[in-house]
Amino acid sequence: MTILNRQWIYQQAPVDLVGPEHYRYEEQPLDTALGRDELLIAARYISVDPYMRIGQSGKPTYDPHPHPVGIVQQAGVVAQVLASNAAGFQPGDWVRTYSGWQTHAVLHASAVNRIDPQLAPVSTALGVLGMPGRTAWFGLTEAGKPRAGEVVVVSGAAGAVGSLVVQFAKKHGARVLAIAGGAEKCRWLQEQLGADWVLDYRAYHDHAALAAQIRQLTGGVDVYFDNVGGMVTDAVVGEIKRRARIVICGQISQYNGHLDAPTLGPRFLHHVLYQRATIQGILARDYLHRMDEMLAIVGPWVQRGEIVFEQHVLHGFEQLPQALNALFTGEHRGKLLVEV
Amino acid sequence: MTILNRQWIYQQAPVDLVGPEHYRYEEQPLDTALGRDELLIAARYISVDPYMRIGQSGKPTYDPHPHPVGIVQQAGVVAQVLASNAAGFQPGDWVRTYSGWQTHAVLHASAVNRIDPQLAPVSTALGVLGMPGRTAWFGLTEAGKPRAGEVVVVSGAAGAVGSLVVQFAKKHGARVLAIAGGAEKCRWLQEQLGADWVLDYRAYHDHAALAAQIRQLTGGVDVYFDNVGGMVTDAVVGEIKRRARIVICGQISQYNGHLDAPTLGPRFLHHVLYQRATIQGILARDYLHRMDEMLAIVGPWVQRGEIVFEQHVLHGFEQLPQALNALFTGEHRGKLLVEV
Repeated sequence: MTILNRQWIYQQAPVDLVGPEHYRYEEQPLDTALGRDELLIAARYISVDPYMRIGQSGKPTYDPHPHPVGIVQQAGVVAQVLASNAAGFQPGDWVRTYSGWQTHAVLHASAVNRIDPQLAPVSTALGVLGMPGRTAWFGLTEAGKPRAGEVVVVSGAAGAVGSLVVQFAKKHGARVLAIAGGAEKCRWLQEQLGADWVLDYRAYHDHAALAAQIRQLTGGVDVYFDNVGGMVTDAVVGEIKRRARIVICGQISQYNGHLDAPTLGPRFLHHVLYQRATIQGILARDYLHRMDEMLAIVGPWVQRGEIVFEQHVLHGFEQLPQALNALFTGEHRGKLLVEV
Repeated sequence: MTILNRQWIYQQAPVDLVGPEHYRYEEQPLDTALGRDELLIAARYISVDPYMRIGQSGKPTYDPHPHPVGIVQQAGVVAQVLASNAAGFQPGDWVRTYSGWQTHAVLHASAVNRIDPQLAPVSTALGVLGMPGRTAWFGLTEAGKPRAGEVVVVSGAAGAVGSLVVQFAKKHGARVLAIAGGAEKCRWLQEQLGADWVLDYRAYHDHAALAAQIRQLTGGVDVYFDNVGGMVTDAVVGEIKRRARIVICGQISQYNGHLDAPTLGPRFLHHVLYQRATIQGILARDYLHRMDEMLAIVGPWVQRGEIVFEQHVLHGFEQLPQALNALFTGEHRGKLLVEV
């Protein structure tokens, strides 16, 4: 038996925004005959993440080679088992996997992780209890190392990772400055997520003005969790305190159009020297084997309603790949998902 | 009794090169009457270091406040005891202290460290066995953490710190690329200091060309010990390998004229992200209390002649403060000193 599998095939690297020429829509028959330990799954939620734009660079980045052209766009997925030839899996079971931008797949059972739908909404397996949560938790705790009373600054604070970092930093007893684009995001960060201070970077036309405001609000920065780069980072780096920890989680301001030709900014390493600060790049996959540590702490917080994990869900498989652009231009808060 | 003390008084912050308006020469009578535990010392070697230019910034740097105006320029000094009212010190004893750009001083014995003239030439207390050696040793071992077989790149490699880092990295079994300005320095680095590769950065007009050569020579960088910043650093950062360690020891290209207004360069933090690299600022004073650890290892190397510690000695107290400019424009190798 075959079923119709819908796919978005990555076919050309975008220079700027994603357009119709970069992804090709395909419908393919999928043979549902299952080998031993195989599952047929149906995607329910498909992830859209900034890192996808990094894999589209022509140069080595996380991986030695860019995302291959001509295959399904790789992505995290929350799926349901439709049919199982693997012990322990039943139709209807929820799993997280990496089957990409397609509606169905036949996978070996070792390629999926079971999701407990009692713990939290299943879509959180792509958010607070998944890759973004892991990035926020280990990036903050392992590289940022916040202490109670310290000042933590988060850029891209309304995003999937940033919004969790704000809350995790508050849990550590830090005072948190959340930087985001637009008054509405800022209001949400302060009123719902508990940020001590908020800054709408769009209200500042240069890094010196932004830096002055950061200085006035915080008196200096101990931990900077950076998702954005560019002008915001230029502003924060000049305001670090002694032995500050700067965590580079993303540089989204540099992905669009200029991944291979970054923009110019003021050279700031002299501040790192004066303050004996540390800048550290972090990546979710480096902490994959430690997911249980995070779930043991963050899981109960989520269950008790102590963490806001807002999701912005676009409905319909056809919303891909335009959803990628929403990461860069959108007004969404929290985790961006496409529901199939 | 009084003696004539000659002093260079710091009186105005230079924007670019140091000129006669920035330092004032004075001759002052010095009362040689000694209180309990005091010493009268005569400077023999006076240090000239790039960090002095950092202290002349109008903004907080290492210290919350810049070097005060109207006092003797602070500096490390190798001196001889002329008279002693402190137990254990005799006239003729050699000491290291921080009495600055003046020929004489009356100091409490706690302000000096004894030098053993049998161990090595006394001037090495301002070089390989002093602050530059400590900076090179702990910066490389604590922040750079080189492993045998790794690639270590050193900028400002012919300088007081850089020339030691090259050799310490070789002692660790690393392969070393030394970057310096001018063919003569490069030849010295390769022939006398054992660098595996050398690069004269002056032969490259942009960071992309320099980066291509670094890539071709080394295949990628594990440790970058940076004394220079600017274009050289722009070039190296794009060539780092996974989990590279970048040590920021100095940014001498940014001190002259632009300390408060750094030049523009390409934003490079995305490389730090891809490679999960670390950038760490280091400062000699943070390791002052661990000097014995370094001397236990490096001291015997110096005694056995296994370390080249070249000195460039200018003769005459009047050579200060022009000697400061030589750090930025000069063709000297190793440690720059003024002999009184």
